[in-house]
Amino acid sequence: SVNPDLSSERQTASFSVEKLTALLDGGTEQTRIRRAVVEAIQSDPVFSRENQYFQTQNERYEAAVRKAVHLQKKMHEMGWTENGPEYKYIYRALSGDVAFLLHRVFMRSISMLGSDKQIAKWIPLATQHKLIGSYAQTELGHGTYLQGLETTAVFDTATQEFILNTPKISAMKWWPGDMGRSATHTVVFAQLYIHGKCYGIHPFIVQIRSLQDHSLCPGITAGDIGPKMNFEHIDNGYLLLKNVRIPRENMLSKFCEVRPDGTYVRQGSQQINYFTMTSVRIALLSDEVLTPLMKACTIAIRYSAVRRQSKLKPGEQEAKILDYQTQQEKLLPQLAAAYAFHFTNDYLQELFNRGYREIQRKNFDMLPELHALSSGFKAMITQHCTAGVEICLRACGGHGYSLLSGLPSLYTKIIASCIYEGENTILLLQTARFLIKCFMAANAGQPVPPSVTYLAAVKHGKCPAKNKLDFLSPDIYTEAYQHVAVRLTSSTAAKLQDLIQSGVKKHDAWNQCTVQLVQAAKAHCHYIAVKNFAETVEKLETKAGIQKIMKHLCDLFALHGIFSNTGAFLHDGYISAAQMDMVTASYLDLLAVIRKDAVPLVDAFDFTDKSLNSALGSYDGQVYQRLYEWAQKSPTNQMSPAYERYLKPLLHNTLSKL
Amino acid sequence: SVNPDLSSERQTASFSVEKLTALLDGGTEQTRIRRAVVEAIQSDPVFSRENQYFQTQNERYEAAVRKAVHLQKKMHEMGWTENGPEYKYIYRALSGDVAFLLHRVFMRSISMLGSDKQIAKWIPLATQHKLIGSYAQTELGHGTYLQGLETTAVFDTATQEFILNTPKISAMKWWPGDMGRSATHTVVFAQLYIHGKCYGIHPFIVQIRSLQDHSLCPGITAGDIGPKMNFEHIDNGYLLLKNVRIPRENMLSKFCEVRPDGTYVRQGSQQINYFTMTSVRIALLSDEVLTPLMKACTIAIRYSAVRRQSKLKPGEQEAKILDYQTQQEKLLPQLAAAYAFHFTNDYLQELFNRGYREIQRKNFDMLPELHALSSGFKAMITQHCTAGVEICLRACGGHGYSLLSGLPSLYTKIIASCIYEGENTILLLQTARFLIKCFMAANAGQPVPPSVTYLAAVKHGKCPAKNKLDFLSPDIYTEAYQHVAVRLTSSTAAKLQDLIQSGVKKHDAWNQCTVQLVQAAKAHCHYIAVKNFAETVEKLETKAGIQKIMKHLCDLFALHGIFSNTGAFLHDGYISAAQMDMVTASYLDLLAVIRKDAVPLVDAFDFTDKSLNSALGSYDGQVYQRLYEWAQKSPTNQMSPAYERYLKPLLHNTLSKL
Repeated sequence: SVNPDLSSERQTASFSVEKLTALLDGGTEQTRIRRAVVEAIQSDPVFSRENQYFQTQNERYEAAVRKAVHLQKKMHEMGWTENGPEYKYIYRALSGDVAFLLHRVFMRSISMLGSDKQIAKWIPLATQHKLIGSYAQTELGHGTYLQGLETTAVFDTATQEFILNTPKISAMKWWPGDMGRSATHTVVFAQLYIHGKCYGIHPFIVQIRSLQDHSLCPGITAGDIGPKMNFEHIDNGYLLLKNVRIPRENMLSKFCEVRPDGTYVRQGSQQINYFTMTSVRIALLSDEVLTPLMKACTIAIRYSAVRRQSKLKPGEQEAKILDYQTQQEKLLPQLAAAYAFHFTNDYLQELFNRGYREIQRKNFDMLPELHALSSGFKAMITQHCTAGVEICLRACGGHGYSLLSGLPSLYTKIIASCIYEGENTILLLQTARFLIKCFMAANAGQPVPPSVTYLAAVKHGKCPAKNKLDFLSPDIYTEAYQHVAVRLTSSTAAKLQDLIQSGVKKHDAWNQCTVQLVQAAKAHCHYIAVKNFAETVEKLETKAGIQKIMKHLCDLFALHGIFSNTGAFLHDGYISAAQMDMVTASYLDLLAVIRKDAVPLVDAFDFTDKSLNSALGSYDGQVYQRLYEWAQKSPTNQMSPAYERYLKPLLHNTLSKL
Repeated sequence: SVNPDLSSERQTASFSVEKLTALLDGGTEQTRIRRAVVEAIQSDPVFSRENQYFQTQNERYEAAVRKAVHLQKKMHEMGWTENGPEYKYIYRALSGDVAFLLHRVFMRSISMLGSDKQIAKWIPLATQHKLIGSYAQTELGHGTYLQGLETTAVFDTATQEFILNTPKISAMKWWPGDMGRSATHTVVFAQLYIHGKCYGIHPFIVQIRSLQDHSLCPGITAGDIGPKMNFEHIDNGYLLLKNVRIPRENMLSKFCEVRPDGTYVRQGSQQINYFTMTSVRIALLSDEVLTPLMKACTIAIRYSAVRRQSKLKPGEQEAKILDYQTQQEKLLPQLAAAYAFHFTNDYLQELFNRGYREIQRKNFDMLPELHALSSGFKAMITQHCTAGVEICLRACGGHGYSLLSGLPSLYTKIIASCIYEGENTILLLQTARFLIKCFMAANAGQPVPPSVTYLAAVKHGKCPAKNKLDFLSPDIYTEAYQHVAVRLTSSTAAKLQDLIQSGVKKHDAWNQCTVQLVQAAKAHCHYIAVKNFAETVEKLETKAGIQKIMKHLCDLFALHGIFSNTGAFLHDGYISAAQMDMVTASYLDLLAVIRKDAVPLVDAFDFTDKSLNSALGSYDGQVYQRLYEWAQKSPTNQMSPAYERYLKPLLHNTLSKL
């Protein structure tokens, strides 16, 4: 039975939840396929996550391997293929709790970087799981700065082999997933040396464990890097190479080849490599970043509708905590952000697909813009969503702190997204470099990519809003965001120029501007996100209440950004103090409006209870019952040796009842 | 051997690290005592935390009980007593990794709320550990709102007993520490009923486990609430009472008594109760909130001095990441905040001691101010320090994400401080209520407590700063903070008045202002923190470079607050846009200045390697070696059954070396 405090929230929805779900999925057919995959996976006990919060790292790893192996069988059974429409929903249905993800990266890297001959040899072996692959790039001493990797691969013409070595401890491979305990092979990135000359970083296929008994191969030291904040199911590993010899054919050679005599030949364009990084950054947003925020919102908002605490009005029943303005101000902006970034992700996907088509035609013009946008948005969205999950966690008070709420593991996992696939600050500085370049070009009258043409149009106007309702106009707030992005970019460009003209060296000047460059890059992405949300809303169908509620969320997303960062808008008086008070008023008004639809808005994300794996977030809102039942199953309710060993001797003097 | 990248940082310290340590400790004698305690504890293998990151919740609990029992022996051996000068350093030396903390709260509650007779009976039993106590206040359904607790205690005149019950699931006690597995007794807070009339919440001593065999007493259901984000060493528990009868003498009766005939007698003042909450909120700041931030800063800053990544200048060696402006901007404000809040804590302690002396003389006048300041600062400091630890964690990139860095456990523990002992938003609203009241009083010409007299002096002036150096003047920035605090308080008071005058009911009006009230409360605390830091610096001795470096940190703390919240200062033009650019310039300049002393500034916190328990933060900076050695000891490097069970069958077709 559904908690009446929750069912009452659903009866007053201003829109069709089912229609909104279909919109998020990209159509009713997609919804149908997704639900079928979720049902097939979640009804299979092998994929259960019920005991996840009770398991040790060793147990999590074992379960993830079991699931990965079982998944092969399941896919075969269900007729799902890697190119089928179901495939993209599998990982989400498993909540990512499965091994061998790096095996897929291993395959992708061979497909992208290997010669046709190498692809023909390795891909079938990998596909049939006759080996388990990994991808060994990051080292103890180098993550961000790939050129600094220290592993060496020296070509030996006599034997036609590469000799791989870890010359010092900082060169040890560190972090590669699936490598600590599972992988038999890996792609090692190493500095290539031929006849004593260094040719930079290249990828090599290296066998690290025996296919007979899984023992480490000669010259290989490898293991698991130990406990982490999350990802207990993954065996992130270390790898130390000592005179490991591999045949010449094992250097991935689509772009570069070493001939038998040691001649180094570079062939083809490497620009596609940047495109790979771009594709990964965009690909991770949906499952690794947006889904966790949507789950956190679902849990926190459902809980806030059933948790009653203290009285809003004297003499009345205790109020739902969702009725407190401060609680709304914590949660509803996160909900708006989840929708905003869902549409940003659509925008990036579309841009990416367009870029991909161009690249197929050997047109690489879109690459810089794609790189800048994927970098900036990866940073901005992971940052916002991580902060959002944390806010949801804290907004559930003590119960949010229990692992059984599901929120701690969402948080400890999503925070990694701020670090992997490019550390966020570094990424924002890449976006900023693009912005500064385009700003200069635009102001010199040169053409610039579409997303930055606005930089040419530096306007010194003022915001025309006259009352608080004007701030519900997308034109008004989008213009304000644009104005701030231009101002921050142009003022930082000016500071950079001034420093250089005053004699500061270029790289020093750049470093002295980086704090402000990061601000400019964020402002740029925020502007695009707001603009894209507003444009998306405009195109939505007006029936079933969808457009109206999305418009509210768009307004909230935009006004929350202004309210949380008033200085950027007030700085040059584009928005006046009186106007800022209107923003605040409109923003607070919106909270009360959206609060009415808060539960239907998270219902539309359509997570099953098994997906949420949360005592606070279940569809029926029976929070306390579930917490109690679940806690009773915890291993901490088994007998502890602590009593016999320590407590009994301590208490032994007192044998009578007090 | 110390990593040369770290030792070079120490050679150029502008001040005496030893003198700064003594300042933080409150004198060289205190430093000596603290170090002796740390040495005695950390050289004892029973107190080792070496395996902590590898242990399960069950193992952590067992270790914590072992340590708690051993600590009794140790204290006896060392001649440490609860009233001795060493006592306060024990918990810090153990890094809080010990059981029976709630046993102490049990004792304190009896001392504070019990009659002389009750104290005479129970305190000796507890002191000698003839029982283990807990403190059962929070329920599944109620934490913040104590009046809403649902557990009942019905007085039965026939048997002279109270009958305790958990009438519904939400009334189950939930979270009490030491209760899940250890405690034999607990103080239960329940609604007292006599002859059918409810007299509100009262405390009762209840035995929950047998002293013979530790089995649950009749009518008691109790256990552990399961996995949490941290606090694995504590058995937070649940408790369900079914017709549990306790003698009339077990109601703690310093303030209220139930006579044999059922007559309810209230005696003495309960105001002291508020003082208890105040004292707990102040007491937790040092060990639970400031120490973790100081540890996180130590780890992240030492690591940033030995981690080299990418090149600042082309052709040169890779740069220390601490040399990047963006890294400085992440870490150094946290360092400044750690010092700022250390001095805030001193200020609160002093105020508290003064309040305590007054209360001894039956003068309760200081209570409202003390309550407001302890609430607001508990919220503000826990919030800032939690955010600071998270920033430190992320600033260490991938390695910060490893539990071996020590940062994840600092984070997952400190975040709880935002929730326990009063949820932060609720606390800030209590401060705000005090502010609004004082603002009204002050403007009506009535006297107000010292910390809020400034509210009477609403000035409409402008900031007089003329160049960026002016913003290094404490008068300039302290005035700016004061101005903002007054403006936010007065504007919110005005909004509240307007709403009420326009017919909105008082409680609705309050709710509609809470987002802004929270802002006002934060601004008030921030102002006091800045003012107190500036005043402290002024009084410091000028020799040994201490005052100079503290002045820099004070400036950074103040300017970072403005830089991160520009809108509040720009809003009414108190600081102009041109002045804000000066703030930014001064702020960024300061980062480069303080960066030079960053390592000595964390060295002064004087944490041992065992206290930090971090592969990244050790004094010698041998980061990579330590990560590698430590990871090899992880249980994840033991044989996993996953190979035989799943991997071998998967790979079994391929028996030849590829």
